[in-house]
Amino acid sequence: MLKFEILHQSKKSRARVGRIHTNHGIVETPNFVPVATNASLKALTADQINALDIDLLFCNTYHLMLHPGEDVVAAGGGLHQFMNRTKPIITDSGGFQVFSLAYGGVHQELKSAGTKKTEGGVKKITEEGVLFRSYRDGSLIMLTPESSVRAQKKLGADIIIPLDELPPYHTQKADLKKSLDRTHRWEKRSLEEHLKNPHYQSMYAVVHGGIDQEMRKQSIDVLSKLAFDGYAIGGSLGKNRNEMVQMLTMLMPYMPYDKPNHLLGIADMPSLHAAIPLGLDTFDSSHPTKCARHGLLYTQAGNIAIVQGRYKQDFSAIDVSCDCYTCTHHSRAYVHHLFKAHELTAYGLATIHNVRFMVNLMKRYRQDILDNKL
Amino acid sequence: MLKFEILHQSKKSRARVGRIHTNHGIVETPNFVPVATNASLKALTADQINALDIDLLFCNTYHLMLHPGEDVVAAGGGLHQFMNRTKPIITDSGGFQVFSLAYGGVHQELKSAGTKKTEGGVKKITEEGVLFRSYRDGSLIMLTPESSVRAQKKLGADIIIPLDELPPYHTQKADLKKSLDRTHRWEKRSLEEHLKNPHYQSMYAVVHGGIDQEMRKQSIDVLSKLAFDGYAIGGSLGKNRNEMVQMLTMLMPYMPYDKPNHLLGIADMPSLHAAIPLGLDTFDSSHPTKCARHGLLYTQAGNIAIVQGRYKQDFSAIDVSCDCYTCTHHSRAYVHHLFKAHELTAYGLATIHNVRFMVNLMKRYRQDILDNKL
Repeated sequence: MLKFEILHQSKKSRARVGRIHTNHGIVETPNFVPVATNASLKALTADQINALDIDLLFCNTYHLMLHPGEDVVAAGGGLHQFMNRTKPIITDSGGFQVFSLAYGGVHQELKSAGTKKTEGGVKKITEEGVLFRSYRDGSLIMLTPESSVRAQKKLGADIIIPLDELPPYHTQKADLKKSLDRTHRWEKRSLEEHLKNPHYQSMYAVVHGGIDQEMRKQSIDVLSKLAFDGYAIGGSLGKNRNEMVQMLTMLMPYMPYDKPNHLLGIADMPSLHAAIPLGLDTFDSSHPTKCARHGLLYTQAGNIAIVQGRYKQDFSAIDVSCDCYTCTHHSRAYVHHLFKAHELTAYGLATIHNVRFMVNLMKRYRQDILDNKL
Repeated sequence: MLKFEILHQSKKSRARVGRIHTNHGIVETPNFVPVATNASLKALTADQINALDIDLLFCNTYHLMLHPGEDVVAAGGGLHQFMNRTKPIITDSGGFQVFSLAYGGVHQELKSAGTKKTEGGVKKITEEGVLFRSYRDGSLIMLTPESSVRAQKKLGADIIIPLDELPPYHTQKADLKKSLDRTHRWEKRSLEEHLKNPHYQSMYAVVHGGIDQEMRKQSIDVLSKLAFDGYAIGGSLGKNRNEMVQMLTMLMPYMPYDKPNHLLGIADMPSLHAAIPLGLDTFDSSHPTKCARHGLLYTQAGNIAIVQGRYKQDFSAIDVSCDCYTCTHHSRAYVHHLFKAHELTAYGLATIHNVRFMVNLMKRYRQDILDNKL
């Protein structure tokens, strides 16, 4: 099980520098957690991932349950061995994908003004769990707190997550409360299932309550009484970044201070900049890798769209201050050419850069906190 | 300019083991030459390519002329620096792509029984050169022996190829002769343009004559009188492998023995097995990398289609005797999973394996020749 050590509390904000000790190594915090959905950080090999110094990698139980199946991964020695990673891994419960496929993200949902309610794969939500249809073969699958945890035991990540419901942004207060209470019961059942055989794994609770401040506080209150090893914040936090930051500002002082605090699914730069001073420790997101595959590359001077003609003869590095493989071996002109020629190598080189950029960004954040600048 | 050294002549066949010394290093022969069309061996980074021990890499002038343009590559320090490769590179003239886009390959052409004559991008073939339409932007481009060589000078490969015409398989004898004579004039002009400033580059002639044995011999006769550094065999050699092997068997004794002999565009296993004993030294082909991207992986026991369900729980290496990164780090089950999940990493891991398999195969061929087994 993990041990969380706070190395330094900033004198300027709630930001802190810490270390999460796991069975597979240390996660320095604050840190960015790249998403390797299918046990693969898109376009990269295990060695390329290792070279990036990613402390914690996020894999998605939903996708891995549907393919190759948690039993295959277990037969292959668990996620670490299956994907050849020696450092820490975190998996989610599968719930997020089941529900987000049903409701869509906040953006899609706002567009449909909350009318899109039960589309997607979700067939039924009961006290027992959620019944959904596999996007792969159409088969009906019952995901319960217990089955999610059992799957995550087979996957063998260092940090696992209890099953929760993700109510859409447009949810009536009474329905939200009903969902929240059920989520708490699901999380408790998940924890109980986990504690039957914790092995080296730790479990983070997921704080819910949608955009209702009181329910959010209540969620922290309920969950912090249970023996979770860390606390994640999930679900809709508002319809834009401002609302999210307001909610987090209100919420963070109530979060268990001596446990790792994780923000689920958000790691864009402005959000990081706002959330790190609030005391959040880890942030997962597929945004930097998705941007990379679309040729949107991070630099100290802002993002660049590498396919633009202006980079055709630009023989400088993507970011001169970056120490990644791409920046130390290739020019913008070469990466531009690979994108224009639709060469697969482009996606790998771009992913290497954006992820390494995030790793270095978080290193600077940690130093700024140590220096009480943040 | 290159120096060709024959280390051993088999006592059993015309097969020989040699070394082509170039400005960027040694090419051991017989050898396989992977194709990195757009200055990128699909899905791999420069370091991954280096780890494969590829002595000679083939880039396509046609594609590089259209994007990013030979001037951009030159501004980037030439192909070696642009793509970050320190070892030898060979480029073609661009003619093959211009004509194959016009006529299609033998297979497509056989299907259309020779009726497809002037489709594709070729607008006009004159004594001067070939006028074609760019597939990228529709602009008209005149490719002449001189412009092709000047482009290849800017690209800066170690070995370059003169402009030739590739008449389709179905060509009347008189037309074939007309084409052959013009090709010889084009090759002579290419050589003259090259010799104005050879720098470290060498030029291989391309022997033509289609499926006409006399014209093939005549082509060797004409070209071997010119100061080429090596001799490639190009154009249609027949409508199937048997016809090709018959033609090569007849042809090889006439080829300049003390120069490297290259077979253009062919490197499938049965062809290699037939052609190496005939004395051919190098073979370029995109076949192994294309197979890789389609999940067709080479093993000592034959090819396997890794997407097949039987590999889902197969935790052995793709090929137990293979020393490639993929085989030493991952199981068939993992690669199977990546292909099924359409993960980009699959293409890289598969390419690494198939290319390394070819590199090792050629190493074994060289040893067999040294041992007079072949």
